[in-house]
Amino acid sequence: MKELRGFASDNCSGIHPKIMEAITRVNTGHELPYGNDIHTCSATAKFHEHLGPNVDVYFVGGGTAANVLGLEAVTRPHNSIICAETAHINVDECGAPEKFTGCKLETIPSKNGKITPEQCLPFLNEIGNQHHVQPEVISITQATERGTVYSADEICNLTEFAHDHKLFVHMDGARLANAAAHLGTSLRSITTDAGIDLLSFGGTKNGMLFGEAVVFFDKELSEQFRFIRKQGMQLFSKMRFISAQFEAMLSDNLFMEIAEHANRMAKFLADMLESIPSIEITGKVQSNVVFTIIPPHCVQELLKNYNFYVWNRELSEVRLMTTFDTTEEDVELFADTLRKVIEQPGK
Amino acid sequence: MKELRGFASDNCSGIHPKIMEAITRVNTGHELPYGNDIHTCSATAKFHEHLGPNVDVYFVGGGTAANVLGLEAVTRPHNSIICAETAHINVDECGAPEKFTGCKLETIPSKNGKITPEQCLPFLNEIGNQHHVQPEVISITQATERGTVYSADEICNLTEFAHDHKLFVHMDGARLANAAAHLGTSLRSITTDAGIDLLSFGGTKNGMLFGEAVVFFDKELSEQFRFIRKQGMQLFSKMRFISAQFEAMLSDNLFMEIAEHANRMAKFLADMLESIPSIEITGKVQSNVVFTIIPPHCVQELLKNYNFYVWNRELSEVRLMTTFDTTEEDVELFADTLRKVIEQPGK
Amino acid sequence: MKELRGFASDNCSGIHPKIMEAITRVNTGHELPYGNDIHTCSATAKFHEHLGPNVDVYFVGGGTAANVLGLEAVTRPHNSIICAETAHINVDECGAPEKFTGCKLETIPSKNGKITPEQCLPFLNEIGNQHHVQPEVISITQATERGTVYSADEICNLTEFAHDHKLFVHMDGARLANAAAHLGTSLRSITTDAGIDLLSFGGTKNGMLFGEAVVFFDKELSEQFRFIRKQGMQLFSKMRFISAQFEAMLSDNLFMEIAEHANRMAKFLADMLESIPSIEITGKVQSNVVFTIIPPHCVQELLKNYNFYVWNRELSEVRLMTTFDTTEEDVELFADTLRKVIEQPGK
Amino acid sequence: MKELRGFASDNCSGIHPKIMEAITRVNTGHELPYGNDIHTCSATAKFHEHLGPNVDVYFVGGGTAANVLGLEAVTRPHNSIICAETAHINVDECGAPEKFTGCKLETIPSKNGKITPEQCLPFLNEIGNQHHVQPEVISITQATERGTVYSADEICNLTEFAHDHKLFVHMDGARLANAAAHLGTSLRSITTDAGIDLLSFGGTKNGMLFGEAVVFFDKELSEQFRFIRKQGMQLFSKMRFISAQFEAMLSDNLFMEIAEHANRMAKFLADMLESIPSIEITGKVQSNVVFTIIPPHCVQELLKNYNFYVWNRELSEVRLMTTFDTTEEDVELFADTLRKVIEQPGK
Repeated sequence: MKELRGFASDNCSGIHPKIMEAITRVNTGHELPYGNDIHTCSATAKFHEHLGPNVDVYFVGGGTAANVLGLEAVTRPHNSIICAETAHINVDECGAPEKFTGCKLETIPSKNGKITPEQCLPFLNEIGNQHHVQPEVISITQATERGTVYSADEICNLTEFAHDHKLFVHMDGARLANAAAHLGTSLRSITTDAGIDLLSFGGTKNGMLFGEAVVFFDKELSEQFRFIRKQGMQLFSKMRFISAQFEAMLSDNLFMEIAEHANRMAKFLADMLESIPSIEITGKVQSNVVFTIIPPHCVQELLKNYNFYVWNRELSEVRLMTTFDTTEEDVELFADTLRKVIEQPGK
Repeated sequence: MKELRGFASDNCSGIHPKIMEAITRVNTGHELPYGNDIHTCSATAKFHEHLGPNVDVYFVGGGTAANVLGLEAVTRPHNSIICAETAHINVDECGAPEKFTGCKLETIPSKNGKITPEQCLPFLNEIGNQHHVQPEVISITQATERGTVYSADEICNLTEFAHDHKLFVHMDGARLANAAAHLGTSLRSITTDAGIDLLSFGGTKNGMLFGEAVVFFDKELSEQFRFIRKQGMQLFSKMRFISAQFEAMLSDNLFMEIAEHANRMAKFLADMLESIPSIEITGKVQSNVVFTIIPPHCVQELLKNYNFYVWNRELSEVRLMTTFDTTEEDVELFADTLRKVIEQPGK
Repeated sequence: MKELRGFASDNCSGIHPKIMEAITRVNTGHELPYGNDIHTCSATAKFHEHLGPNVDVYFVGGGTAANVLGLEAVTRPHNSIICAETAHINVDECGAPEKFTGCKLETIPSKNGKITPEQCLPFLNEIGNQHHVQPEVISITQATERGTVYSADEICNLTEFAHDHKLFVHMDGARLANAAAHLGTSLRSITTDAGIDLLSFGGTKNGMLFGEAVVFFDKELSEQFRFIRKQGMQLFSKMRFISAQFEAMLSDNLFMEIAEHANRMAKFLADMLESIPSIEITGKVQSNVVFTIIPPHCVQELLKNYNFYVWNRELSEVRLMTTFDTTEEDVELFADTLRKVIEQPGK
Repeated sequence: MKELRGFASDNCSGIHPKIMEAITRVNTGHELPYGNDIHTCSATAKFHEHLGPNVDVYFVGGGTAANVLGLEAVTRPHNSIICAETAHINVDECGAPEKFTGCKLETIPSKNGKITPEQCLPFLNEIGNQHHVQPEVISITQATERGTVYSADEICNLTEFAHDHKLFVHMDGARLANAAAHLGTSLRSITTDAGIDLLSFGGTKNGMLFGEAVVFFDKELSEQFRFIRKQGMQLFSKMRFISAQFEAMLSDNLFMEIAEHANRMAKFLADMLESIPSIEITGKVQSNVVFTIIPPHCVQELLKNYNFYVWNRELSEVRLMTTFDTTEEDVELFADTLRKVIEQPGK
């Protein structure tokens, strides 16, 4: 028997009650489809409130789609996209970026999931060489796949470097709220104000049923995006049900409340685990994820009752994620279970 | 002011109450993402119940995606897809089939939205000619974009012809339930039993929030489909919320109940309109749509209060669709309004 | 036994002696590859001489490549390309335009291979509609696949219409020289001066071994083309051997001499055939091709000794092409053979 | 002034006299286009002679095309292609593999250009995981971009490993002849007999004007290739002129004679350079290329009179290639020049 609430991923949770309520609330009567409805209007206004009046916002179904379609808008097939080797677009999207944009991904080895301007520099050597793909975008993830968070300064450095070299900066913000919560700052300060050109703003991992937003910070970039979205099979007819979720998410700082809770649970989990002998936390806990090394036989034992991912089999490193509905009891129970498993004589 | 319930499209309606209830019901605790949950299991079992034990079913977000990804599974880019000129894949998907599959669409002019083996025949002349695309699939829509319905015999003729020529038959079944309701038959009799190879089974237009099913009738065809779905940006993490909707839809024949109601409302609407002088119904009313010619100045007048599509501006032909929540009062009110508009002296 | 010189196509001939000589002449020593050689420089200068100083010229291997890569340069995948149903890009390129550009081809039925602004107009109705592909280019063939030739005025009308609607005009000029020869005008008057944006200038069908030129009339359009050419697998390392051919072709009006000869032979062939009872010439003979209806049993008989294409099996219409090396004797012999075949008692 | 014969690349040379003669010889009369001619027949027979009777051979224009179209034939877009980081398909084809096949390239760092089964192994961990691209081909280059050569045993190890894991092995044989010459073995022993599934056999770098062969060792893999070639814009109409070159190349072991000469010149060049103080040869000289470290100021001085590529700017490592027409005098003159430059007082 698997438990109700494990630590496999933030997309194992369901829909946050306030978001569920928003879906229910807009389920009355007819609305024009494809985003020509009042709720899409209000949700867009909420984005303007948080990110500034000049952003152009488009809703799509999932995170892979948000990344890929956004990147399609700013590239041609002979371009390349520079990103960390660990980036979701590189390892978890089954080649969707290559297939849809035609671009090559040029990757940078990264232990903590972050990349720097210095690491991007060598890829610029081939600019103008017709035999090579031409870098056009740097894509970063915030918070990263390793749970780390770029500071506003780090982002500014990257965007300044990029713009100096006529590159765009894309941010995969599937967990942007968690990053903002960690930094104790606004969404705007690490996107609009930090020079980001293009953002995938995540909803699903933050308590929504489905739905992500592709946010353009310069309307010239999004001129053709409504066609790209439709051709990319991401124009949802009953759009109001995505929009209503975003409206709720961006009202009363719900996104921040959810992210802060999940982050807090991750910290609590890390603290609990660190108190267990022979357990090592790897990397900084800056968002809603904990990476930790657990002896292999204990991992096997734990997997009998819990779902989570073994991140690095050689190191016996596992990934534990918290969500909006993770409770202190969940964490304590998990830590207790692990403690018992560890104290058992291993095989 | 626009009315609550118009006749613009079946995707203007919201979520059917029983389906909304299903979404709410499964919103508890954690589930494995990406379809590894119990609800996806049950929904799949429902498909087996209705379409036979050998079908392989994959859920995606929308109708365009269901069509395009299904077609990708059975084609290579040098193939062509034969379809009616009026097909959704040809006119309403912003070139998604061409972009994603690389294939050319070879189209057949069609007044009523249907095509015949005889019309497909000329496209086979170039089989083996390396300068020409190679036909691989015939795609039909059931019910068609013109609201007409293929009989089981007509489908069998097409699939027999196709299989004789080593072609597959794809059915865009965004409104398959309405076709089955019209024919008074099971889903199975016009798909599995009629030799269809590949089906897009529609949920959204039949009362779901979102979600369509790609159904393969031969598992060899779907061997790689889970990768195609992910690369096609259509693997939803919180899959249980699509699955639960399909489970509800396929339980107690809810899909049939909904379709029968919408069809009945269309018939009623056609009857009401026909009783109005100078209004002409064009084509047969076989599903949940009425095509009708209304004098241009009346169309303009009606559009002030109602949303609907002008289908053929030259003919002043409009499309009126009914849905699960269309009421007799809605129809009567619309007919009354039209009657008044007609009796007004036009400009 | 097949004869040495038939009428199957202008690409059945070999290499014109003056062009062969050019290839031989540049086969000395080393040259920088990929177009950084002196012969590419000179060939480009020749293009400037003929088409004006502002054209940007790129050499590729074949006609399909010239069309497809040129169109890629001016489109995005959600665009459409408007062309005649008979266009080479539509029927003879195995779907390469769709595969490589992602665009849909929107086709216009055409008996003589030509299209008019009026026929293009309906495709503009959906501009701005996100469900539809967005027209971006009108592509015409000069001379057409039916052997007809657009006048300079006809081209101007099309380009004016196109530019009024923010569309580009692409010319597939695989047989542009034949068109210019027919009109008795310069290449420039029916391209640069007629408002063409993008040209495929054919070499192979005019006596070259291989090689076509993609010509841009506005350098903004070709800014990224060197990458598109390489990614399109059309950057030839020993470029000098294409360039030398073009240099020869554009020197001393060799292209015109060749085209005039081939056109003259086609006229002569048509005259000879018309003098034969029961043979009908279909369409105007304006370039190096004759379409003619020949009784089916005679076609079969002729095919025993000659290669040519049956264009329309139902009409028993065949296509007969002449080339730079077609002689009056070839034509007379063919006509004699046909005359004898006709006089034989058919089965 | 640049010299006539430098060391920039083997594609800086022209056409070998015997190949030029073959082109000239077939330039008579008409032939059916697109490979339906007698010379294509003979050339194919030559391939059967060298590689065995079961190979299926298709001619294309260039090396990038041979690689990309061959890989397209054996992959679907959700697959990945495993190769060395240094592979031509990875660094020198402007993203053509990604654009045309849709596949991701998964790369292995390699100093000498070669890869091993052990290095491929980790990529197989994600087989079956729908979030990840699915490895389908291992691509190796023979001789490698670093001039090294796989032994027959090394190739067998790779193909055995690949086939055990249901992967294909593709060989980029742009310089296969040079590898065979180095090993003193037949083409067959390091392709057909070594388990290769798919080969790009190079012509251009070995003295041809243009033209490469895509060779399939299992006809099931090439079933659709004639359509892939045409859609890939690589079906040349005057095919006989490619075929005649290959016929000449494969007659009287001309390919071997050319390769042996070029290899010998490379060895001679390496010997000459090694005798110069402060010059270091990097890596083994196994084909027609020498990598050598030359002091930066000498590189600048040499580039005034010679074309060659600086391979690694940091190391001041340059690449020097020899060709069929490199003479001992060329090598001696270059070595002398370098010696003088070195003896000059540097800046």
